[in-house]
Amino acid sequence: MITGRTRVFGILADPIAQVRVPEVFNRLFAEKGIDAVFVPFHIGADALEASWPAFRAMKNLGGLIITTPHKQQVARLSDVREDEGEMIGAVNTVRREPDGRFVATMFDGEGFVSGLRAQGHDPRGRRVVMAGAGGAGSAIAFALAKAGVAHLVIVNRSPEKARALADRVRGWFPDCPIEVADRPAGDIDILVNTTSLGMKPEDPLPVPLDALRPDTLVAEIIMKPEMTPLLQAAEKRRNPIHHGRHMLDEQIRLMCDFLRI
Amino acid sequence: MITGRTRVFGILADPIAQVRVPEVFNRLFAEKGIDAVFVPFHIGADALEASWPAFRAMKNLGGLIITTPHKQQVARLSDVREDEGEMIGAVNTVRREPDGRFVATMFDGEGFVSGLRAQGHDPRGRRVVMAGAGGAGSAIAFALAKAGVAHLVIVNRSPEKARALADRVRGWFPDCPIEVADRPAGDIDILVNTTSLGMKPEDPLPVPLDALRPDTLVAEIIMKPEMTPLLQAAEKRRNPIHHGRHMLDEQIRLMCDFLRI
Repeated sequence: MITGRTRVFGILADPIAQVRVPEVFNRLFAEKGIDAVFVPFHIGADALEASWPAFRAMKNLGGLIITTPHKQQVARLSDVREDEGEMIGAVNTVRREPDGRFVATMFDGEGFVSGLRAQGHDPRGRRVVMAGAGGAGSAIAFALAKAGVAHLVIVNRSPEKARALADRVRGWFPDCPIEVADRPAGDIDILVNTTSLGMKPEDPLPVPLDALRPDTLVAEIIMKPEMTPLLQAAEKRRNPIHHGRHMLDEQIRLMCDFLRI
Repeated sequence: MITGRTRVFGILADPIAQVRVPEVFNRLFAEKGIDAVFVPFHIGADALEASWPAFRAMKNLGGLIITTPHKQQVARLSDVREDEGEMIGAVNTVRREPDGRFVATMFDGEGFVSGLRAQGHDPRGRRVVMAGAGGAGSAIAFALAKAGVAHLVIVNRSPEKARALADRVRGWFPDCPIEVADRPAGDIDILVNTTSLGMKPEDPLPVPLDALRPDTLVAEIIMKPEMTPLLQAAEKRRNPIHHGRHMLDEQIRLMCDFLRI
């Protein structure tokens, strides 16, 4: 039951109808007996900056979860950016301190890496190929480098974007060997798709799988459908697979810790 | 269950822990099967104006209920003030139109008058004495004048404040006979207390009751305690009484209509 004492958390998004965050967190609040509520705040990109003082002023605001199109803008508006939030200049979780300061971070990459570990696939010392160099790919590339992969190859439709990402990651992790390639090749322990290819059943594979070893782990970050064409093709080759939901599960755990829920 | 499609309503207050609005409206939403949630927004008076653009920007905001200390400031910030909201320059309910405009009104007075009517005590043509000339008293004085009382007497500790209120009401309702007095006298159909005297058990009566007829209705707007010293004294004299909760019940009904709930 929501009372005058209930703490408020919000998700900032536009569009917002599709977000699942309120359901997930309100179930957690109920299970843990926490007097808090998670609500959708539907604000357009052009109005975010003007809206920010309200979130600073709202004394019962616990924090915000940030999604498209606000991740970069909130990184800029926040007072402190931690870890990947600072490295990539985009955040998805913001905690409001009692004095009104906003501490922000990005769990897209850490959530993916943490999901791998939770399933027994620690990426430390492994050779990883990543398809995609967009928002999710950026966060995951930094998190993989931070996790100590032996080698990271970025495959992207636009190689310029892949090279720019590789350069940015090298700036923070100069010892991590990073390359850009036009398709997976060589010895690969883990292949991860960070593109949106696979959300629709008719989507082509983001990369060909013929170079994979039989034991290469094939990982997705797409949650719907659970079995993307990539995972189906991997399963057909009898490669081990890793579902998109593991990233979300771990992000929620990390967000709870960060938001002190 | 709150999803990305759920409409958000908020109550603006400082302090906020005591507000009952979220409980009342969330129960209504559940009963009516409305996909909406009412949450507390704890914002201080000094931060309200800077916060206002967020409420304008929030596309899924249905409306706001306003309480201390924001009623005057929100009246000023809103685009349209209806009825008593315009007359007294204070509002307690704001609807957000789809284009972001805010239409505001004040139901304190109309809720009281509507509560009288709901209990069979239409104030039209009646002689009314009102104790108090503060925020609630102002709203109720205007609503009584609008309802067509035959005569309104304002009794207040500070007669200057009562005279100023009487002048303001006359400005809008020049045909309504309004006087200021230092105690109830003459022929009285309804006595209403709009002061806060009676919230504490040791409070003195807001006005003496010796001038009342045996059938004068004695009305309260205080909800806690249900039986104030005034109502207890009236009941001892066997006068009919009218509880504070009727005003709240009718305000909620009026707010629902106005907010299109």
